[in-house]
Amino acid sequence: MPQKPLFDTIAIVGFGLIGSSLARVIKRDSLARHVVCVDISPDVCRKVLELRLAHEATSNIAQGVSAADLVLLCVPVGACGPVAAQMGQALKPGVIVSDVGSVKQAVVNAVKPHLPSHAHFVPAHPIAGTEHSGPEAGFAELFERRWCILTPLPETELQAVERVTKLWEACGSMIEIMDPAHHDLVLAITSHLPHLIAYTIVGTASDLEDHTKSEVIKFSASGFRDFTRIAASDPVMWRDVFLNNRDAVLEILQRFSEDLTGLQKAIRMGDGAQLQEVFTRTRQIRRQIIEAGQADYRSPTGSEAAQPGKTIPIKASGSGS
Amino acid sequence: MPQKPLFDTIAIVGFGLIGSSLARVIKRDSLARHVVCVDISPDVCRKVLELRLAHEATSNIAQGVSAADLVLLCVPVGACGPVAAQMGQALKPGVIVSDVGSVKQAVVNAVKPHLPSHAHFVPAHPIAGTEHSGPEAGFAELFERRWCILTPLPETELQAVERVTKLWEACGSMIEIMDPAHHDLVLAITSHLPHLIAYTIVGTASDLEDHTKSEVIKFSASGFRDFTRIAASDPVMWRDVFLNNRDAVLEILQRFSEDLTGLQKAIRMGDGAQLQEVFTRTRQIRRQIIEAGQADYRSPTGSEAAQPGKTIPIKASGSGS
Repeated sequence: MPQKPLFDTIAIVGFGLIGSSLARVIKRDSLARHVVCVDISPDVCRKVLELRLAHEATSNIAQGVSAADLVLLCVPVGACGPVAAQMGQALKPGVIVSDVGSVKQAVVNAVKPHLPSHAHFVPAHPIAGTEHSGPEAGFAELFERRWCILTPLPETELQAVERVTKLWEACGSMIEIMDPAHHDLVLAITSHLPHLIAYTIVGTASDLEDHTKSEVIKFSASGFRDFTRIAASDPVMWRDVFLNNRDAVLEILQRFSEDLTGLQKAIRMGDGAQLQEVFTRTRQIRRQIIEAGQADYRSPTGSEAAQPGKTIPIKASGSGS
Repeated sequence: MPQKPLFDTIAIVGFGLIGSSLARVIKRDSLARHVVCVDISPDVCRKVLELRLAHEATSNIAQGVSAADLVLLCVPVGACGPVAAQMGQALKPGVIVSDVGSVKQAVVNAVKPHLPSHAHFVPAHPIAGTEHSGPEAGFAELFERRWCILTPLPETELQAVERVTKLWEACGSMIEIMDPAHHDLVLAITSHLPHLIAYTIVGTASDLEDHTKSEVIKFSASGFRDFTRIAASDPVMWRDVFLNNRDAVLEILQRFSEDLTGLQKAIRMGDGAQLQEVFTRTRQIRRQIIEAGQADYRSPTGSEAAQPGKTIPIKASGSGS
């Protein structure tokens, strides 16, 4: 527990799953003296005050961020630029601006031009979430033992990076520093393509005739169910991810499609040896994930709990390859 | 708990995850007086006796099944025909033969010709499993609150269906009766395509250059990890599934590919409206799965436990559409 708050005033712009989870842990552990909710929706502002997630709430962006030492943009990736344009002139000298977007290069490009030179910009991406959305869906433990990737710019002052690092560590996260473009490529594989595929297969199923569809729902536990959970994620957030990480997603999608076509042909030709070879090779990655402590063995009831992780000190990664 | 064993002697052919789980529940609850392990591997036979999962164990198929009232084929789908050919002449009059294959029409075609006319064939598919294989991976609770689909032939005696039903209900399963071809179509969507896609994406990732691959493993919790669990399933079992359910898998795969190409184009063209429309539509299926009790809300720790289900009485389904 910190001796004193890490920040005086934190403004959280966008009170969805991530923003409201941040507010919960910040208030619970007194990581800031004062928390301001900024949300375009008056209903959300009312709800946030009702749940006592922030000390004040406003739909006026410039007003909401004006007293903040730290502004956290927790809106969909596509909204980061427009929000930055509205708040730029109102920011206090020395303010730190950060975000939580799942795409980093596009956010840097969209936000940076609107920030005054006295502001410190530390783009961030906490790899945490659930398929649920909205201020009620948040919980203070969301970031515990999860990675948070920071993609500071070359000109970002180290001190600003350290203060944002301290906040995320206080939320229970492990920190990694990465180049924005490399982040976008890694996440295209680990997150964006899996989500696109899950959305696709659930969409394909929803086009089936009604009788078959009802049986798909009934027997979903055979594999399909995992995809439906992923495909229940927030549509606007994911629309913006794909629009803003287009090149990396299309590149990875192209490789995936080639590989899928190869397996399709093996099935059509009855080439069991090739199928078995691919299906055997993929086990290796699972083993490495288990060894890396990113998954544990599935219990008989089907739960897969995260293993306790240890906090990793800041180190450069990804930019040297 | 049954008053007396449901069967005198049960022979389980193939002691992997499913076979050994069946043996565990049959022995634990005394569902048979005598359990015979038949496995082509002498090592597995030794292990089964060591773990006391069966009363006797043999690698000789004809000898192993000769005294059985019920023979359960728990081998990969592609091995069902060859095993049936070896055991056919040794079967006792009035024996019930069943299996656990994930494909039903091909198993019926492969097994039926080898069975003597005095044998009763009740094809079955318990929708249960984990990504782990082998006799040590089994556990008695594997089938609890899971569906088991039976696909009896038109000439199968109802009494045989009822005895197999009683066994699976004693294992904790819920029973559904279905036409074999319809089973294969439903499972192509709910299970076979999800597995094929998971194998593909993990294969695509394993072809990445080493540095990126190590980061994919590190940040797998963002969606990719779910796919790696599915893609760690038994390679021979899944090879056989795709070889034996070729037409249904290729048909569903074709629809999936068309839908994926549509989303790919939307990403390339920056068509946010279409992306959002598809991503919104897919939430409906997740809601229906939750309403059907096939999934519950994900807890903050990420576990998704099966909800208690109730046993459903036998009813026809799937053949009337």
